[in-house]
Amino acid sequence: MASLEEKRHTLAHLLACAVLERFPHAKPTIGPAIDTGFYYDFDFSGGPTPGEADLAKLEDAMREMLPSWEGMEGVEVSENDARSRFAGNPYKLELIDGIVASDEPITLYTAGGFTDLCRGGHSEEPARDLKSDAFALERIAGAYWRGDEKNAMLTRIVGLAFDTKEELDAYRVQQEEAKKRDHRKLGKELDLFTFSELVGSGLPLYTPKGTVLREELARFSEELQRAHGFEKVWIPHITKIDLYKTSGHWDKFGDELFLVTSQESSDQFALKPMNCPHHTQIYASQPRSYRDLPIRYMDTTTCYRDEKTGELSGLTRVRSLTQDDGHVFCTMDQIEEEFEAIMVMIKKMYGTLGLSFHARLSFSDPANPAKYLGEKSTWDEAERILENIAKKLEIEYVIAQGEAAFYGPKIDIMVTDAIGRKWQCATEQLDFVQPTRFELEYTAEDGTKKTPVMIHKALLGTIDRFLGVYIEHTAGNFPTWMSPVQVVVLPISEKQSEYAKEVMTALKAAGVRVSVNDANDSLGKRIRATKMEKVPYMLVVGDAEVSARTVSVESRDNGKEDQPAALAEFVARVAQEVRTRV
Amino acid sequence: MASLEEKRHTLAHLLACAVLERFPHAKPTIGPAIDTGFYYDFDFSGGPTPGEADLAKLEDAMREMLPSWEGMEGVEVSENDARSRFAGNPYKLELIDGIVASDEPITLYTAGGFTDLCRGGHSEEPARDLKSDAFALERIAGAYWRGDEKNAMLTRIVGLAFDTKEELDAYRVQQEEAKKRDHRKLGKELDLFTFSELVGSGLPLYTPKGTVLREELARFSEELQRAHGFEKVWIPHITKIDLYKTSGHWDKFGDELFLVTSQESSDQFALKPMNCPHHTQIYASQPRSYRDLPIRYMDTTTCYRDEKTGELSGLTRVRSLTQDDGHVFCTMDQIEEEFEAIMVMIKKMYGTLGLSFHARLSFSDPANPAKYLGEKSTWDEAERILENIAKKLEIEYVIAQGEAAFYGPKIDIMVTDAIGRKWQCATEQLDFVQPTRFELEYTAEDGTKKTPVMIHKALLGTIDRFLGVYIEHTAGNFPTWMSPVQVVVLPISEKQSEYAKEVMTALKAAGVRVSVNDANDSLGKRIRATKMEKVPYMLVVGDAEVSARTVSVESRDNGKEDQPAALAEFVARVAQEVRTRV
Repeated sequence: MASLEEKRHTLAHLLACAVLERFPHAKPTIGPAIDTGFYYDFDFSGGPTPGEADLAKLEDAMREMLPSWEGMEGVEVSENDARSRFAGNPYKLELIDGIVASDEPITLYTAGGFTDLCRGGHSEEPARDLKSDAFALERIAGAYWRGDEKNAMLTRIVGLAFDTKEELDAYRVQQEEAKKRDHRKLGKELDLFTFSELVGSGLPLYTPKGTVLREELARFSEELQRAHGFEKVWIPHITKIDLYKTSGHWDKFGDELFLVTSQESSDQFALKPMNCPHHTQIYASQPRSYRDLPIRYMDTTTCYRDEKTGELSGLTRVRSLTQDDGHVFCTMDQIEEEFEAIMVMIKKMYGTLGLSFHARLSFSDPANPAKYLGEKSTWDEAERILENIAKKLEIEYVIAQGEAAFYGPKIDIMVTDAIGRKWQCATEQLDFVQPTRFELEYTAEDGTKKTPVMIHKALLGTIDRFLGVYIEHTAGNFPTWMSPVQVVVLPISEKQSEYAKEVMTALKAAGVRVSVNDANDSLGKRIRATKMEKVPYMLVVGDAEVSARTVSVESRDNGKEDQPAALAEFVARVAQEVRTRV
Repeated sequence: MASLEEKRHTLAHLLACAVLERFPHAKPTIGPAIDTGFYYDFDFSGGPTPGEADLAKLEDAMREMLPSWEGMEGVEVSENDARSRFAGNPYKLELIDGIVASDEPITLYTAGGFTDLCRGGHSEEPARDLKSDAFALERIAGAYWRGDEKNAMLTRIVGLAFDTKEELDAYRVQQEEAKKRDHRKLGKELDLFTFSELVGSGLPLYTPKGTVLREELARFSEELQRAHGFEKVWIPHITKIDLYKTSGHWDKFGDELFLVTSQESSDQFALKPMNCPHHTQIYASQPRSYRDLPIRYMDTTTCYRDEKTGELSGLTRVRSLTQDDGHVFCTMDQIEEEFEAIMVMIKKMYGTLGLSFHARLSFSDPANPAKYLGEKSTWDEAERILENIAKKLEIEYVIAQGEAAFYGPKIDIMVTDAIGRKWQCATEQLDFVQPTRFELEYTAEDGTKKTPVMIHKALLGTIDRFLGVYIEHTAGNFPTWMSPVQVVVLPISEKQSEYAKEVMTALKAAGVRVSVNDANDSLGKRIRATKMEKVPYMLVVGDAEVSARTVSVESRDNGKEDQPAALAEFVARVAQEVRTRV
């Protein structure tokens, strides 16, 4: 039985065959399997180009042909044979050039009478393996030959393909749901953030409402960290590149940095893409003793990464990344306790946020110990500790053998959102290397100088990216504690305006974010506006409420309450909900 | 009678005369009056250079000669006469070149038989005007000819000079006091911030304790602003320079910017040196109605300015400036109320911080109305409003006629510190121009589109700079609410360690920053360490306190308290002191 990737690759051939039948002037180029299906790029110059309307017909043609694709076979051919077969297709000839240059065999694959230049990886029995209701053509797009904008623009036909119809349907439902929840769309509707052409792409500006979300998340993260002894520090957003030459980042990431030029000094600066090297300089500013360790620094601070313009997307891929970053400097003996404490914070954070997760433990490759810096026994011990913590805290985990960076093993937290998508968020990383590079030290109990170990951690990761994910997870229905506006008071008429303001004042005094909507609109219109804003609580006050000093409560999540609540009782209830972040 | 500046300038001549008497090989160059006295730069090559030990003798020589300086007269001479008189002094010849090139008269001034090339501005009767006990030679330093490091290194002799001995003495006491309070020295002793050569000059890194100070100040400022309806926003630290081309800053400040180069895109970016242009983009992200105004944005955010390396100094002149910045978008009718509300915040802030201040009102120049953008009647009205607010709030003020920027009048707050120095901190600035440049608008009540007015404001100004000033103002004795550590508990012996931790827990629960010092040192040593750290409260606990559940309180500012305080009473008292920022 073929793998899903082999099926998808096979479908790319089937698509090319269907296209050539209806558009014989098409020049096929390449057609790989992708994460959700497959695509094929064609050059349609010299004849008509298919449009969206043709997709259904092409799909039908594929389904019709499929039963006749009873075997798929590869044969190796000579360079000359290959060149003569694709003589009219400069793309295939260029591919042949490449295969010849790399000294690989040239293979052709045939099924249902259709032959293509291909290195293999298909279903051997398409008619048997492929389900005709488990694929669909999704869309047509432009794409440059070999992804290079200097080359010719081709036409890409993209298909979805899964093992079963059920999986295809589930994916389509998820896509529909994701479109509704798109954080770029909700960000505009709920007035959370904006982009300006004058400021630049990938550089979001947060409105007052979006800033509340950022600050609530940062405050939550800082509270969790502070409770475990993390202390906040502050560092500038730029540095001389000397810092990264010492840390080793300059050699590895030098060309991904935003470079900063001073017009006053000849020093070369860069915008910081991470915070650890800065934090080492605070550690190094004083002599440290074993009695001072662990030293734990945290900061909510913005890093800058020079992402490709084409890859920027809403908040999930930005150039200005604000992180709830932190670093622990400690002894080897302390890493178990520190790692566990951080993992407890992560559990608490994602539990409160209503997001399930599993851990991915990136360990060294046992077959290749020379790749890693430090003693093998230290690595073994550290990896044992990481796995033990996952077990002890009953966190579902997978081990990614050989995925560790050369400087230490790590734990990544993979979050699953409400529509089943997975996102990498929190991370904990051991580092045996940076403390040595910066010559950090502490005086041990025996009076000798020793090098501390460093732990990198982030609970939310990049707050911007997390917010993008969380807007889609909640579809904008944020929990009360995060909501930019937590309560809206609606007086039925002007007569109750004064009481509505009294209600607002009582809630404000309890730290609740509240507003009164007494605009000159009908109550119905004002209720609809409040619901559009996804405010957790709406309080309608009429004459009955004024005289009883109550409020009629409609909860966004639980609907209208049967009985009006006493004002003081409602204030206490919401304040409690906010304080405990339930 | 001569002005102080004329006296100082005269003393520079007297110094040169005294120097030439003892060091006849010296070549005098230039000798101006400065803020606190005068200096003269000499080239001593070809003979001995005076050292600190010579200052007293030179000073004596000056005092001896002074009575004979009974008149000081200037004469105009020809270029040839001047050149032949200073034939052996290339510096004076270079000065003569300059005077000739600018087509000015060449004048020589003589007193006590000493003649110097000089453009004038002296006492006409030095023996009468100058008091021999009101000046002193302060120090010797190196200085490049004309301040250019490519030129020869000269020797600068610097003197202090005032109208009276009392003023000279007062200045010296202030200097002594300032030296003790130097925030760079205290910053190190109290472990508040550090600089790293790898990160670069002018880029402080704040330790946990320094970060507490920054955050307490920012929180106080934000609280005051939030109470008046300012809403926090967030903006990235970089922008395409297109933003500054639109705002007009590019033309004016383009060469003072840190330029940021992307290696991925051809866009030219800069680090933001101010926040207003970014804030306009948030305003512009939605259609606005007169009903929405005033819109008030605030942020505690870092700007970057490419200051000259030689001008950087501790926290008072940095390259990374974190500001409690904010902008109000409103109608002309609303500026009075907004300006007043901001001024009330400023009064509250500096009152709480224990700093007196006066206001400086920068107005337009009535003789030159064409210099200013906008109607004269609008300016008149705005200036009347600003002055009225100062009067109404009983703020001491001076009017600086003609000091306004072309885009609007402003109020600067000049703070006086504990040793009498003045610092410019808060500012409120009207802006008639930026809203127009960014084409900002709102829909007025009559349905037409109108342009809002903008108010720039900062309460603390640059937090780094303010902190530098405030460390020196308080000599590191911060008020309790700001103090990084507010209470230290000292158990007399190990026996009270557990109770000490109980005390700590009770204070922590009340939000107090507290630590226990139960290190293996004598009580006396621990008390001295706590006093060195300038902690507001020190609680000593022995057996008596344990059994009575009390604490013996020693206040940094008010000394030892006669009676131990009940634990709960002390917790409530400190929590109250912190909450009310008394």
